[in-house]
Amino acid sequence: MTTPKPPFSGLNASRLNAPGASGLNAPELPKEDLGLFTDLYELTMSQAFFRQGMSATATFSLFTRTYPLNRAYFVSAGLEDVLDYLSNLNFSGRAIDYLRATGIFSDDFLEYLRGLRFTGSVRAIPEGRLYFTDEPAVEVTAPLIEAQLVETFIINQVNLQSMLATKATRCVWAAQGRGIADFASRRTQGTDAALKMARASYIAGFTSTSNVLAASLYGMPPSGTMAHSFISSFPSELDAFRAYAASFPDRTTLLVDTYDTITGTRNAVQVAKEMEVANNGRLVAVRLDSGNFDELSRQVRKILDDSGLGYVKIVVSGGLDEYALEALVKAGAPIDLFGVGTKAGVSADAPWSDMAYKLVNFNGRPVIKLSTGKVSLPGPKQVYRTKDANGKFAKDIIAMENENLPGGLPVLEEFMKDGQRIGPAATIEEIRTRFEEEFAALDDRFKALNNPPRYPVSVSSRLERLSSEVQEEVMGINVSDSD
Amino acid sequence: MTTPKPPFSGLNASRLNAPGASGLNAPELPKEDLGLFTDLYELTMSQAFFRQGMSATATFSLFTRTYPLNRAYFVSAGLEDVLDYLSNLNFSGRAIDYLRATGIFSDDFLEYLRGLRFTGSVRAIPEGRLYFTDEPAVEVTAPLIEAQLVETFIINQVNLQSMLATKATRCVWAAQGRGIADFASRRTQGTDAALKMARASYIAGFTSTSNVLAASLYGMPPSGTMAHSFISSFPSELDAFRAYAASFPDRTTLLVDTYDTITGTRNAVQVAKEMEVANNGRLVAVRLDSGNFDELSRQVRKILDDSGLGYVKIVVSGGLDEYALEALVKAGAPIDLFGVGTKAGVSADAPWSDMAYKLVNFNGRPVIKLSTGKVSLPGPKQVYRTKDANGKFAKDIIAMENENLPGGLPVLEEFMKDGQRIGPAATIEEIRTRFEEEFAALDDRFKALNNPPRYPVSVSSRLERLSSEVQEEVMGINVSDSD
Repeated sequence: MTTPKPPFSGLNASRLNAPGASGLNAPELPKEDLGLFTDLYELTMSQAFFRQGMSATATFSLFTRTYPLNRAYFVSAGLEDVLDYLSNLNFSGRAIDYLRATGIFSDDFLEYLRGLRFTGSVRAIPEGRLYFTDEPAVEVTAPLIEAQLVETFIINQVNLQSMLATKATRCVWAAQGRGIADFASRRTQGTDAALKMARASYIAGFTSTSNVLAASLYGMPPSGTMAHSFISSFPSELDAFRAYAASFPDRTTLLVDTYDTITGTRNAVQVAKEMEVANNGRLVAVRLDSGNFDELSRQVRKILDDSGLGYVKIVVSGGLDEYALEALVKAGAPIDLFGVGTKAGVSADAPWSDMAYKLVNFNGRPVIKLSTGKVSLPGPKQVYRTKDANGKFAKDIIAMENENLPGGLPVLEEFMKDGQRIGPAATIEEIRTRFEEEFAALDDRFKALNNPPRYPVSVSSRLERLSSEVQEEVMGINVSDSD
Repeated sequence: MTTPKPPFSGLNASRLNAPGASGLNAPELPKEDLGLFTDLYELTMSQAFFRQGMSATATFSLFTRTYPLNRAYFVSAGLEDVLDYLSNLNFSGRAIDYLRATGIFSDDFLEYLRGLRFTGSVRAIPEGRLYFTDEPAVEVTAPLIEAQLVETFIINQVNLQSMLATKATRCVWAAQGRGIADFASRRTQGTDAALKMARASYIAGFTSTSNVLAASLYGMPPSGTMAHSFISSFPSELDAFRAYAASFPDRTTLLVDTYDTITGTRNAVQVAKEMEVANNGRLVAVRLDSGNFDELSRQVRKILDDSGLGYVKIVVSGGLDEYALEALVKAGAPIDLFGVGTKAGVSADAPWSDMAYKLVNFNGRPVIKLSTGKVSLPGPKQVYRTKDANGKFAKDIIAMENENLPGGLPVLEEFMKDGQRIGPAATIEEIRTRFEEEFAALDDRFKALNNPPRYPVSVSSRLERLSSEVQEEVMGINVSDSD
């Protein structure tokens, strides 16, 4: 079994030449108040740091401690939004006024916030690449307050987008080469998630998205044709089909299950034949949105083929996730394209992860946290990924940033330095291609939808040693605390 | 057991006097391109309607077919965003240019879209009130295209916000009068969900939110003090505690589990005593974020009490949801405030619902959809809610809009007419109070966290009759279709 390639770039999908060239505004947090999208404690801690004069450099590491259900890998996504956020981070005059009105903050700290910009650096695993538990997906190094304040937004975005990219990857793998369209927008948890789902799933290999704003913002192909309400608003299903075909002779997919799937398919055949006779376009596909998809798709395929409509494809949607896709594909159901919505768009079987953003270095000193069951690795880090003789990933080693492990390729790259982005942002197509290559190099056994084995990740001996040393040191300090 | 009232308005919480008066911009979709946040098929259907001259009035009904796991009610939330969206719906010149560039749409339809505004009416169940399966939470009546185009956004927002308000209500019920702070922002599915979680959970009775932007936008109290990284960035825990108390003498909650909860509590006691001696504020609380909360909270309470610090409260956070809250409350753990994050913020046990937006009336004709297992009730509707002798809700009856059922109070109200909002928006405090009264009138048995019984909802005999008639008519049409 090899990594499936989506065979066609979207049924009824339209792709614009210039990604992101629409000139539309991204629906994001208000640029002038980005600083306020944070947990209050980031600000109270920052004031305490400020009063203590603690302006030394800190490194925070973003990583996930454990795999959610049935996962053995994560797909990196969300970095572009993090870099954009850090580039624009600020507190407007109104934001400062609001903070003053809470009565929590001192004037000198508020004046400091008014001038605050992010001046640090960011090293991260590029979007579209894989990462594994305990590996730093993002490392932020900056003066303590700057690095602390950005925690809430960074976790929020990388957690969401990696989760959705990972879920979408599972769907793409299950579909084994059949196309998948993102239909999730109406059921994602909010508008931000809808747009990020469209982008993350396209990175993972979906062929199109139903969300027009996402398609326009990210330069992806939009797709979609009709809902049940379209059928219901005409006196008959046949009238509805004819009206649609008249308006879109070259891109008609007919939804056939509003009343009865078989009757609907026969009506679709009639319209397809009328299109042939009139020499006015060709029916692209029929869509099934309810019922037993394996049985119905076979019946529908037979009706279409018996009518000489072998060219009409079958689209299936409705409650699908990677588990359903795998079952349908293994059963050999004659389905050409899946529409995937709700369950993928909220990552229903694993709607959260325990991604954390932890201080690992401060003022040149590696630090850790010892809370029950939550030990973290100290210091800035690099991940080295090694390949076997077949070009497949063999194992990862988490090491100290400045270690050089022979044979391993470093996975984290620098994306921001002194508050400035380094190099141009990758295009969505570049990220999609990067993911395709990356995922092809992961052995298939880690892609199993159920109970995949763990991909081997170890810690370098130098980092192990540092970890032990810091742990002993911290315990020592803490015992003396309680004297 | 009566409906719990949050006893204190937020530990370390600060409330501003003028809700929403911060003057900050709401982080919403770009106003000039609201029209594009929609599924492509809404636009292709609209073009087909446009070409057919189908401009008659349609009514769409938003409802949920089935209860997610362990739910027996929904809390209405999201309407305010729907009304704001409808008031601002439009397609900018750039949006039109984008749509033209896709090659999908005809020029006459694009010119129509350029001038499109929402001119219809909205009837809905007010935010903070309860609703049940099959009941219309929102009904939109407008020229067909306008009513169709808005589907994606309306489902997205009402589904999310009602789901989160319902989840938060379950937490409030489980806490039985203890306060709850929303800590979910970093793990919600995106920034939109973070803000909506803060608002929805405050409606449901949470005492505060950690999200500063949400607090400023909606006029709610923000809360929060320190993270583990704060402790780790000081040479010792005691140094960190002292630094924080110096900066916030009147609002210090000390996080005691960075290294060891009991040692941390002893350090907190030492700092509390130092504050007493210096006569500089009083320690408000300690926070536990890991370990066995029942055991640890008792040990911590004893240490505090034995040290004469009975006034210091205990806050607990970390992986909590309504099930954990109920267990801790039933066990009698001495916890004063819960911080609730991830699992509530993504509604982890039920992260989606099957909310649908269906055409129920077009051009004066009631319509339905018959897809396998998905029958909907025809026509515009009203819900009548009746109370028993004790003032508790007895049952709901779903009826035709113009029916007048004696004894029942209508639940849907008109919020928009001819594209204009009717009356001022309710304040967040009004909605919160409305919810509190509403929830008190729901019998406790429906509030059970596990396997609650179904609240009785019936369909009026007139609506039943209409439903049968329309069903027969549709079947008749469809049979003739396939001839």
